[in-house]
Amino acid sequence: RELCFGCLQRELDGAVLLRPIGLVHSDLIAGQAPPRARSEHAVIELDERYTPALLRIEEHSQLQVLFWFDRAPQQAQLQQHRMGDASTPPRGVFGLRSPHRPNPLGLTTVRLLTAEGNRLIVSGLDAWDGTPVLDIKPYSKVYDQAVEPAAG
Amino acid sequence: RELCFGCLQRELDGAVLLRPIGLVHSDLIAGQAPPRARSEHAVIELDERYTPALLRIEEHSQLQVLFWFDRAPQQAQLQQHRMGDASTPPRGVFGLRSPHRPNPLGLTTVRLLTAEGNRLIVSGLDAWDGTPVLDIKPYSKVYDQAVEPAAG
Repeated sequence: RELCFGCLQRELDGAVLLRPIGLVHSDLIAGQAPPRARSEHAVIELDERYTPALLRIEEHSQLQVLFWFDRAPQQAQLQQHRMGDASTPPRGVFGLRSPHRPNPLGLTTVRLLTAEGNRLIVSGLDAWDGTPVLDIKPYSKVYDQAVEPAAG
Repeated sequence: RELCFGCLQRELDGAVLLRPIGLVHSDLIAGQAPPRARSEHAVIELDERYTPALLRIEEHSQLQVLFWFDRAPQQAQLQQHRMGDASTPPRGVFGLRSPHRPNPLGLTTVRLLTAEGNRLIVSGLDAWDGTPVLDIKPYSKVYDQAVEPAAG
C-alpha cells in the first residue's frame, strides 16, 4: 500500500510526516537492556531504495543517527526527574535526553565501523533492536559544536 | 482543529507523525541568507503548552535543535555534489548535511544565551526565519560524542 505523502502532508495542518529509512538490529533488547547501554556492534539496515544514499559514506568515521523512540508512551511528561531519580529536582524534558518527549526523536553519535551494501555497522548506538531509523548525517565540526558568539 | 494523532498514527503504516513544538525567529531569511550562515541571535518560540518543558534548561550552555527543513523540495536527491560543487565526486545524501534528504530533518548545536518564558535566545542556529522546530535536547558528552570501541 503506497500512501500519498504529499496529499496527507497538506491535510495535516502543520504536522510533519516522516517515513523510516530503515531499522536497527542490535543486541539491546527492549525492556532488557540496562539504562544508557550502548551496543558495540549494531547494524543499521536501510530500505534498499536508499542504498545509493550511502555512496562514499565510509569517508566519515562518526555519524549521527536520528531514530524514532517507537516504544515510548504516546503522552510525554513535560517535566521529569533525571533518570527517574526523585532525589533530583524536576526538569523540563527539553533539558533531558529522556525518550518520553513530545516528539520522540532519538539522536546518538556513533562510530562507523563498516558500510556493506544497504547496511552500516556501527558502535555506540543506544537504540533498541527493531527501532525505526529516520535519518543519518555525518558528524560535523561545523554544525555539531556550538560556536562562540562574537565579542562585542 | 484538533487531529487525533494516535488514530492517524495507526493508519499510517509505519510512518511517523510529528507536531512542531515551536518556530524560529531569525535574521536568516529564506532565499537571502548565504549558504552555511548561522545567526548570532535567534529566538526559538515554543507553543505555550510546552513552556513547562523548559524548566531549568538554563543549566545547559549548549543545546541541540532539531528542526524541519520545511522549504526543502519534496523529492530528495539520493546522491548530490557537496555544496552543489560539481568538481567534487557525487556522494550519498546520508554522508552530507544537505537539506534535500528523504526526511528533511535539520540538526544544529547552538549556544543558549537566555531562556525567557516560552522563548529561548540562542546563537549559532542556521535555520531560516519561520522554520518549525521539532525537538530540543541538551548537548551531551555521552550521546553526542562517539565512544571508542573496546580493544580486542
